[in-house]
Amino acid sequence: MEQNRQAPIGVFDSGVGGLTVAREIMRNLPSERIVYFGDTARVPYGNKSKNIVLKFSRQIVHFLQTQEVKAIVVACNTASALALETIREEIDIPIIGVVKPGAKVAAAATRNKKIGLIGTRGTVHSGLYTEIIQEYDSQIQVIGQACPLFVPLVEEGWLKDKVTLEVAKRYVNPLLDQGIDTLILGCTHYPLLRSMLQELVGEQVTLVNPAYETAKALERLLKENNLDNNQGVEEEFPYRFYVSDAAEQFRDFANSILPYDVKMTKQINIEEY
Amino acid sequence: MEQNRQAPIGVFDSGVGGLTVAREIMRNLPSERIVYFGDTARVPYGNKSKNIVLKFSRQIVHFLQTQEVKAIVVACNTASALALETIREEIDIPIIGVVKPGAKVAAAATRNKKIGLIGTRGTVHSGLYTEIIQEYDSQIQVIGQACPLFVPLVEEGWLKDKVTLEVAKRYVNPLLDQGIDTLILGCTHYPLLRSMLQELVGEQVTLVNPAYETAKALERLLKENNLDNNQGVEEEFPYRFYVSDAAEQFRDFANSILPYDVKMTKQINIEEY
Repeated sequence: MEQNRQAPIGVFDSGVGGLTVAREIMRNLPSERIVYFGDTARVPYGNKSKNIVLKFSRQIVHFLQTQEVKAIVVACNTASALALETIREEIDIPIIGVVKPGAKVAAAATRNKKIGLIGTRGTVHSGLYTEIIQEYDSQIQVIGQACPLFVPLVEEGWLKDKVTLEVAKRYVNPLLDQGIDTLILGCTHYPLLRSMLQELVGEQVTLVNPAYETAKALERLLKENNLDNNQGVEEEFPYRFYVSDAAEQFRDFANSILPYDVKMTKQINIEEY
Repeated sequence: MEQNRQAPIGVFDSGVGGLTVAREIMRNLPSERIVYFGDTARVPYGNKSKNIVLKFSRQIVHFLQTQEVKAIVVACNTASALALETIREEIDIPIIGVVKPGAKVAAAATRNKKIGLIGTRGTVHSGLYTEIIQEYDSQIQVIGQACPLFVPLVEEGWLKDKVTLEVAKRYVNPLLDQGIDTLILGCTHYPLLRSMLQELVGEQVTLVNPAYETAKALERLLKENNLDNNQGVEEEFPYRFYVSDAAEQFRDFANSILPYDVKMTKQINIEEY
């Protein structure tokens, strides 16, 4: 088992967004190695069906298993909402997603029992955030809003832009009108819009970033399973990055999110897994 | 060869956008059967690499060949720009894309030899429109602008919206400042923004819609190869639609583009081809 503790954590996303989750794991669990996979050939997952997201996620989990990871983090809200529960039954290592950690914190944060959820169509329509939150408190109301333009706006780099603000108002104002006091950033790209969104909703609304909560949940999960790397890492850069397409473009975005220069990005044929 | 003339035309796109091309073929070549494939599991292609777009396009061409199509139309600007020339060498039926027909008409339309091109990153950066246009007249300048937000805006249904207008100004005004008199709508979704774009650029700028030009080029290609269906079709609805994901969502969008109720949409596993 000692060998196992040294093994890397597998982290995957439909593309680059999950790097916001990887970043939190790097910050909060600096003794852990990471193998990250971004499905840049088939990104995005947000508008795709449950069956397809499940199929793609399974292929990625199979790939990560060939990398001998000790645990897997589904760093994609859509895959967490549509594929995680099925895949958990199929593998014998711990796996967590971003939905449950985010949902728990949101349920604890709300005072008036009205939570807003923004995310992709897949995430919002899955109803999984609502289900988990209502397990904690069946009185809590979760009001969802799919925001399909946020990801392309972030990827266009229009983070502090009047167009993005106008789009954000269009999506978020109906939630404010319904009196939410908590807002879940239910897509891994959205933390990059955090300061704009906080300004828009005002200080009285708590923003919940599942990326941070997921890193904390991973820490507990590893400890419970005696899988935390108690020996630390020797490498200066214990992170490996794989993609299904166009390593350069990934690297550019990765370098804008992470405080490292992302080396060793390797392209693989994910359809083979 | 008579049997061959009755065979369908294969038309494919990364998703639903290519239906604007299928629509022009239906209008202009009513005696032809069509098998349409939309790669909705892996959409969009616009930001992806040449290698991945070529790989996906090859799989689709193999699938269309199992449907015994007599000719293929690449109804996607990105795939036309990045994959068509390679695939043409690999198959023995006629194949055309949307880039060349659009480029020819734009070259004929410009008077001041300044053409604007809007499209995906893949299409604009490929340089193929410029290359083809300059074969006609090496003096013509082509000014490209990638517009990655247009497809998600169209798919969100914000066709006549102040946000879309603001985004359009951001993308198109620099082209107007450089004095273009012709603008190529170099992505199959963009004809849905046609009226907004025409208003924005003014009547003195000619909009070129490659979808229409492609249908006319297909008509000539079929005649030249004695492949046009000179017996006509008996079926009331001689069109079949295949997708790689989520047939219902495709059908909704298809029904908004086509003047038919799209029946018989079938999902296939494109990775197997």
